[in-house]
Amino acid sequence: MSETLRILGIDPGLRHTGWGVIEQTGSRLSHIAHGVIRIDTGLSLAARLGGIFEAIGLLTAEYQPQIGGVEETLVNANPRSALKLGQARGVAMAALHGAGLDVFEFSPRTIKLAVVGTGAADKTQVGFMVARLLPKAGKLPSDAADALACAICTAHHARMPAQLRARGAA
Amino acid sequence: MSETLRILGIDPGLRHTGWGVIEQTGSRLSHIAHGVIRIDTGLSLAARLGGIFEAIGLLTAEYQPQIGGVEETLVNANPRSALKLGQARGVAMAALHGAGLDVFEFSPRTIKLAVVGTGAADKTQVGFMVARLLPKAGKLPSDAADALACAICTAHHARMPAQLRARGAA
Repeated sequence: MSETLRILGIDPGLRHTGWGVIEQTGSRLSHIAHGVIRIDTGLSLAARLGGIFEAIGLLTAEYQPQIGGVEETLVNANPRSALKLGQARGVAMAALHGAGLDVFEFSPRTIKLAVVGTGAADKTQVGFMVARLLPKAGKLPSDAADALACAICTAHHARMPAQLRARGAA
Repeated sequence: MSETLRILGIDPGLRHTGWGVIEQTGSRLSHIAHGVIRIDTGLSLAARLGGIFEAIGLLTAEYQPQIGGVEETLVNANPRSALKLGQARGVAMAALHGAGLDVFEFSPRTIKLAVVGTGAADKTQVGFMVARLLPKAGKLPSDAADALACAICTAHHARMPAQLRARGAA
């Protein structure tokens, strides 16, 4: 009786945007696909942002996810970095929304908590747990592992009753 | 023999995104249209960003500009504000690029220099000069005046020979 949900997780960035698609049926998660959108840094900023938008549009068309999860940018970075990351992140969210997905956002801490069990986990621990939870994913580039971690966090969240969800949202 | 260029200037923001369309024929500028995209702040962030993307897509379809100019976000804001502005700005740039426009970016200082003649001009001076340069625009909301100022700056820039343009770009 469990519905299957397909979830696209995105770890946005101006150079590398990691992505990962998983399926959730009841409490079971399975790996569908992952990858990294690499943008030629020689292009203009507008072309790079346009490229991220288009690539996410192609991913949603190919994998038909119902839900999107985007990693929140850390705001303890300096304003110039925050601005750059914000640009890539805004484009990712607009692209997911434009493709008709429900879009959730999670802080890096919430994602680590969901995947590793502690918000203070490091990248290696996140990668290790993503590989355990999604054994079919194989060896993962770090940006794709982060995106799959975000998808796993989104899956946990989507399973929550709505009244808890409001509290759990990052 | 002067070609007519149609330019869309954008002053992006998560609540209000100002826009203005002008035409340039030789050194003559004329006002075509302006407005402010107002986004319901009760919507999710993804829906707000998606709304900005769609609205800019509608504007480019209606007014058919060849060139877009976007105001750069000030980076001396705090990281959280920079992130928010970056999101709106990234979406604006991706939307202009997606509609096939050449996209330029200018710092607030470069825009003020182009419109008022000094990079230290205040909002009132910018509004005053925009109204003088584009008398048909009438009374302007401040976000639309900023967007038209950005369009005027883009027009000056687009008229420059390419070798000067590289230096002049913000």
